[in-house]
Amino acid sequence: TRTIRLAVVAGDGIGPEVVAEGLKVLGAVLDGSDVQVEQTPFDLGAARWHRTGETLTDADLEAIADHDAILLGAIGDPSVPSGVLERGLLLKLRFALDHYVNLRPSTLYPGVPTPLARPGEIDFVVVREGTEGPYVGNGGAIRAGTPHEVANEVSVNTAYGVERVVRDAFARAQARPRKKLTLVHKHNVLVHAGHLWRRTVEAVAAEFPDVAVDYAHVDAATIYLVTDPARFDVIVTDNLFGDILTDLAAAITGGIGLAASGNINPDRTTPSMFEPVHGSAPDIAGQAKADPTATVLSVALLLEHLGLGDEARRISDAVAADIAGRDGTTRSTSQVGDALAARVRS
Amino acid sequence: TRTIRLAVVAGDGIGPEVVAEGLKVLGAVLDGSDVQVEQTPFDLGAARWHRTGETLTDADLEAIADHDAILLGAIGDPSVPSGVLERGLLLKLRFALDHYVNLRPSTLYPGVPTPLARPGEIDFVVVREGTEGPYVGNGGAIRAGTPHEVANEVSVNTAYGVERVVRDAFARAQARPRKKLTLVHKHNVLVHAGHLWRRTVEAVAAEFPDVAVDYAHVDAATIYLVTDPARFDVIVTDNLFGDILTDLAAAITGGIGLAASGNINPDRTTPSMFEPVHGSAPDIAGQAKADPTATVLSVALLLEHLGLGDEARRISDAVAADIAGRDGTTRSTSQVGDALAARVRS
Ligand SMILES: CC(C)[C@H](C(=O)O)[C@@H](O)C(=O)O
Ligand SMILES: CC(C)[C@H](C(=O)O)[C@@H](O)C(=O)O
Repeated sequence: TRTIRLAVVAGDGIGPEVVAEGLKVLGAVLDGSDVQVEQTPFDLGAARWHRTGETLTDADLEAIADHDAILLGAIGDPSVPSGVLERGLLLKLRFALDHYVNLRPSTLYPGVPTPLARPGEIDFVVVREGTEGPYVGNGGAIRAGTPHEVANEVSVNTAYGVERVVRDAFARAQARPRKKLTLVHKHNVLVHAGHLWRRTVEAVAAEFPDVAVDYAHVDAATIYLVTDPARFDVIVTDNLFGDILTDLAAAITGGIGLAASGNINPDRTTPSMFEPVHGSAPDIAGQAKADPTATVLSVALLLEHLGLGDEARRISDAVAADIAGRDGTTRSTSQVGDALAARVRS
Repeated sequence: TRTIRLAVVAGDGIGPEVVAEGLKVLGAVLDGSDVQVEQTPFDLGAARWHRTGETLTDADLEAIADHDAILLGAIGDPSVPSGVLERGLLLKLRFALDHYVNLRPSTLYPGVPTPLARPGEIDFVVVREGTEGPYVGNGGAIRAGTPHEVANEVSVNTAYGVERVVRDAFARAQARPRKKLTLVHKHNVLVHAGHLWRRTVEAVAAEFPDVAVDYAHVDAATIYLVTDPARFDVIVTDNLFGDILTDLAAAITGGIGLAASGNINPDRTTPSMFEPVHGSAPDIAGQAKADPTATVLSVALLLEHLGLGDEARRISDAVAADIAGRDGTTRSTSQVGDALAARVRS
């Protein structure tokens, strides 16, 4: 028997609701197998912060790190000052656990309503850098609150950090049928960071001669995402551009209710973390309205990462079948979870 | 008789082709009026750089500054290292002439093909800050080209710079029927810059009590642009987010062939500059294929800025009528210009 030790951070808003369904489907897909899941819930997020003033203590982090993987729902609440939970908890986890590959697949499942008139085939993966860029928290302000305030934000990019994520993206591109990698940046303006990314892609490309390499400025990339998303196979990009592009990618593939992500440390020295791309959606929290599909697909990424590819595929097949069968009837969060759990069992 | 002294920077690629049509329509709309145009062409861009190594000399800048307005086609060519012309010429003009309002209207004209299935009514304006943010050129690299390289890019935001563009955006919102302003930023991650923007919007809002204020993170804003663009009236945002959002906005309103922009110094101490949002498109340069409509609409923004609102409206009406009459027949760049010139005359 293999035991997966899973840290569960349900978090805020709809987080607990969608995580419950993710765990339901995880249980269902492993039912009858020799893999079992040992869950540790972590009380983190807005409620904890209000109660204790803590976001993520060293003890929390140490306890979480002592797991095989993390399932996270959503973090953030309007009652907490902007940035406190995002930077003190969500990004702290990504940075402390060195999740340098933020993996965000975008697939348009047949039957999913998309805002695009002629979407074509959409099936690409964004490999978003997760530990550098403008997300490093390396900014500050002087004379804050006065007419002479200067507020800076620094994007930090290292050869070490860029190379490892670019190499991961190339490997993913090589494993896919189309074998195409697109670097997205803005090297005509952000020349220093841009040239580092560009040079790194050129250098690593030599190790992957069968992967076709392409480049798009981030502004142009948003155009392609709505006019010709089929051109993309694997996109590699920095932390901020990746944040923006993956929300747009989620929108064109049926909305953030379906978009899954993995915060991955490919070196496996720390647990990787899987979460839906959507946020805590406080406006619909507690109403059983949230679509748990993105969380369920995040569970599939988790299983894939842990080497359980067959189980992962059973989940994504179940999701595809469920989506194909949607007829517009409103279902509650747990009804969707039940339906997916039933499908993976059958 | 009033004379408009116009600096013309046709630039690279399709720049000269579309500028020729812009000037044709400008001539047509002023024909028979007491306004005349005195043009000074400036030889700037890739060819000049190849010949002389110069992008924009002090003498060029001084000469350009001695005009009432600037019409620019497009800057950039693959034969020139990335960033040289963009930063040495295009951005240098925007910065040196203090074009702190980068104005980019997005209107979906009836009959224009859009990639969206149900676009709804799209009619908003992006007020993109033009002289700060990650565009300031305040970055650098150490140990470049080695495995120990660190490349930084600094986004600089000042109370002075943010307040003046936010005030301009509020004034524009107030002058529009819907009177709504949306700040787009990412204040949960870029907390220092984000909080400056947020506090500034809150403070200036007090002077515009009839303007409704809204906020969206930049990632969410890209979702809204494809799922519910009608929610936007005036967007105010930083230089980089504005760059990204306006390309996406152009895409959903029929493509960058139609998107106009003004680089405006509202204080009128320097000439403002008007240019299509599209680039130099070297792949179609010299083939008379480029759509000059974005440049013609930029001429309308120019006239508006110079207080010639009636003439501006005659141009935008002509464009709307031309677009409504498009039947899929391919027209050359000058055929489109001729058609628009004929319409503004009639
Ligand atoms: C909540 C926020 C900090 C986060 C990010 O910007 O990375 C989110 O938008 C995401 O994409 O996971
Ligand atoms: C060419 C480039 C420097 C420019 C920008 O990034 O501002 C362009 O994309 C634009 O939007 O005008």
